[in-house]
Amino acid sequence: MLRADQVLADAASLDAYAHDDAEWAPFEPPLAVVLAEREEDVSAVVRLAAASGLRVVPRGAGTGLSGGANAMARSIVLSLERMTRILEVNAAERYAEVEAGVINDTLREAVAEQGLWYPPDPASYRISTIGGNVATNAGGICCVKYGVTRDYVLGLRVVLADGDVVSLGRRTAKGVTGYDLTALMVGSEGTLGIVTEVTLRLLPLGGREDRAIVGSFGSLTAAGVAVAEITAAGIVPSALEIIDRTCIEAVDAWQGLGLPHGADTMLLARVDEVGAAGDELAASVARIMTEAGAMSVEQAADAADADRLFLARRLAYPALERLGPVLTEDICVPRGRVPEMLARIQATAAANDVVIANIAHAGDGNLHPLIIAPEGDDDAKARAKLAFDRIVDDCRELGGTVTGEHGVGLLKVPGARAELGDRVIELHRAIKHALDPLGILNPGKAYPA
Amino acid sequence: MLRADQVLADAASLDAYAHDDAEWAPFEPPLAVVLAEREEDVSAVVRLAAASGLRVVPRGAGTGLSGGANAMARSIVLSLERMTRILEVNAAERYAEVEAGVINDTLREAVAEQGLWYPPDPASYRISTIGGNVATNAGGICCVKYGVTRDYVLGLRVVLADGDVVSLGRRTAKGVTGYDLTALMVGSEGTLGIVTEVTLRLLPLGGREDRAIVGSFGSLTAAGVAVAEITAAGIVPSALEIIDRTCIEAVDAWQGLGLPHGADTMLLARVDEVGAAGDELAASVARIMTEAGAMSVEQAADAADADRLFLARRLAYPALERLGPVLTEDICVPRGRVPEMLARIQATAAANDVVIANIAHAGDGNLHPLIIAPEGDDDAKARAKLAFDRIVDDCRELGGTVTGEHGVGLLKVPGARAELGDRVIELHRAIKHALDPLGILNPGKAYPA
Repeated sequence: MLRADQVLADAASLDAYAHDDAEWAPFEPPLAVVLAEREEDVSAVVRLAAASGLRVVPRGAGTGLSGGANAMARSIVLSLERMTRILEVNAAERYAEVEAGVINDTLREAVAEQGLWYPPDPASYRISTIGGNVATNAGGICCVKYGVTRDYVLGLRVVLADGDVVSLGRRTAKGVTGYDLTALMVGSEGTLGIVTEVTLRLLPLGGREDRAIVGSFGSLTAAGVAVAEITAAGIVPSALEIIDRTCIEAVDAWQGLGLPHGADTMLLARVDEVGAAGDELAASVARIMTEAGAMSVEQAADAADADRLFLARRLAYPALERLGPVLTEDICVPRGRVPEMLARIQATAAANDVVIANIAHAGDGNLHPLIIAPEGDDDAKARAKLAFDRIVDDCRELGGTVTGEHGVGLLKVPGARAELGDRVIELHRAIKHALDPLGILNPGKAYPA
Repeated sequence: MLRADQVLADAASLDAYAHDDAEWAPFEPPLAVVLAEREEDVSAVVRLAAASGLRVVPRGAGTGLSGGANAMARSIVLSLERMTRILEVNAAERYAEVEAGVINDTLREAVAEQGLWYPPDPASYRISTIGGNVATNAGGICCVKYGVTRDYVLGLRVVLADGDVVSLGRRTAKGVTGYDLTALMVGSEGTLGIVTEVTLRLLPLGGREDRAIVGSFGSLTAAGVAVAEITAAGIVPSALEIIDRTCIEAVDAWQGLGLPHGADTMLLARVDEVGAAGDELAASVARIMTEAGAMSVEQAADAADADRLFLARRLAYPALERLGPVLTEDICVPRGRVPEMLARIQATAAANDVVIANIAHAGDGNLHPLIIAPEGDDDAKARAKLAFDRIVDDCRELGGTVTGEHGVGLLKVPGARAELGDRVIELHRAIKHALDPLGILNPGKAYPA
């Protein structure tokens, strides 16, 4: 039974839970907010909504960047942020079972105590929940070598659209019994069921040694060449990130890190092989950067030094948010098209008279152009939206996909319509209808309905 | 248009295509066999079947071990074995696009020429097709470190139940546009659509050095302890296989390899880290084997020597097939339950008076008890089936899953019914009906209908 303090309907709460971090996407205040504490609470809300013709908008920490947790008319926002129990960490079998509201970093720390590692590291890892990571199939910096959330989800507990609860997947290392409903649920943004518990595959914590190599380049193109050459050399770095001049200057103005001011682009790489093999790989990466025309290349002496070199990357997003509301893009192009895509983004910024900063998981071709409009400038906001659409179109022209790791939510619905095509959208609709015939679970998200 | 030589209806052909390698599962001769050469052929057959109320049984090389390609009443077997074009190998983006009938090993060789590697290596890799591998989500020896087929499938071309063709997934490194219909198709055994083309993620070929370590143990339990200790040490071997005394003797009797005759169990490990790190890991594995009570431990001096040490593993299945028809089990238990499960299998063999040999991907907990009945001995065959069911029940009692990598097909339908439960089976049925409302695509397979 829901206690009174689990149900919020005051104006401030309805406002606070009306949207996630994609405030540029449409939203309406919900009718109520429910803070679920147990699976039974989730079931109860879904049953009530089904009976009353209401919609349920599931929500983790609200750090989503595509509007997947934005509220809508006749909706109840169902927050799982209080479901924070770590149910089991099994070192022998290398899995953890957690409730959906556990924070990504809390999980990482808990499993580290037992010598285990949970790799997926979205930028929001200190504040986002595992349930939200699963709903959006979140990525991160280490994906280039270690894969995304889906690659670590072995099984799920899911509340279905009629309030029934099912266990999907397994705890064993392998298993192919029936359809892969676990994978279908991952990334479905709460439109097919509400994930309450997650069983995650873990890796051993040890056996890796972090080495960072950072190059400063005079142009995005030169950095792009270095990325292509690193890939062509058969090197799989554990991170390969780009930040551009706008990011560098924003971080420097904020934190005064003494970043290379003349530099147009920084390319930040990590390798994690151990011993001499790691030394050789780091040296190869540094050599490739130099040969691609880096103005300077710095290698970290140890893990703390590596973290220092990556600090500019970690601070880039908050540094840019200080400049005004940020409309965050998330596209993924073939690795070889990264320089061309970055050039097009620069042209789009100029054509629409907007500031666009670039953070990129370059090793994956996953780019995050960040479009910044000054606070309260509606005209700039309109131009930012035009730039957003142009970038999505360009990405598709270059063989890319309209969302690499943030999800379709609401912001990428038009792009998804173009990318998927009518027949594949029909498949989505058929599956949605099969699992949620009343259409009460987060309708309008995840695919063009 | 189908040419006359693409449509077979003679008795010998109907017989040859009536079942896959799971002849113990039920089958009936098909009405006809169609040898598709292009996507259009697949579409045409599906449309014809839909119009005529016939069923379509897709088939690759017919090496399946669960009966997924077994023909049924009113069925057309649709073989994709002639669709063998390698459409693209893209070294810069590290993917390959191939038709479904390409042989796993052919793909491996083709991409190796460009410095790339396709890891999944089912035992049938020399003869099975990529389409079949995708349909069953095939595993193999290297999965313990490198994952299964699904982990490498980026995108698919699929003929739907109405003959329409869709492209699912992507070619980029990441992407979360819409539901993961690619993952839903992988392992669905042709019941939701027929895969005609596959886009596969590849790894760099280099950067690995094979080292093999083989220990002979006096008991399964001792080998099981070594497996648990290797895992607990945070080592992720690139292979960790067990073969038991029955396998050892069968291989030795056939090929006279001079295997350790007194040994009850061989534990075969590989690590592939380079340089000193690889040497240290190999030494650690050898030390753990010795401490767990190995009678002898042998380390390969080089790659050729490593292949020699693993030859007994590669030859085990064909060596056992010489002894009589083999009923192949495929269960997966938590790694720590491997010794207990192996002990129960031995007890089941004794209780049912059947010969059971054991091959196990021990590092994954994925066991293949091979139940052997003498040719023509119907009573032994009946006892073998009883043993098969007992093993499935035991696996579930130990927290395992009824199929680790071979698929449900027909053989594991009863086990899948128990494992999935009514509500999850309903979800399967709803999705199947959404995508194949007439139920013409390989009905009765993959889940309990």
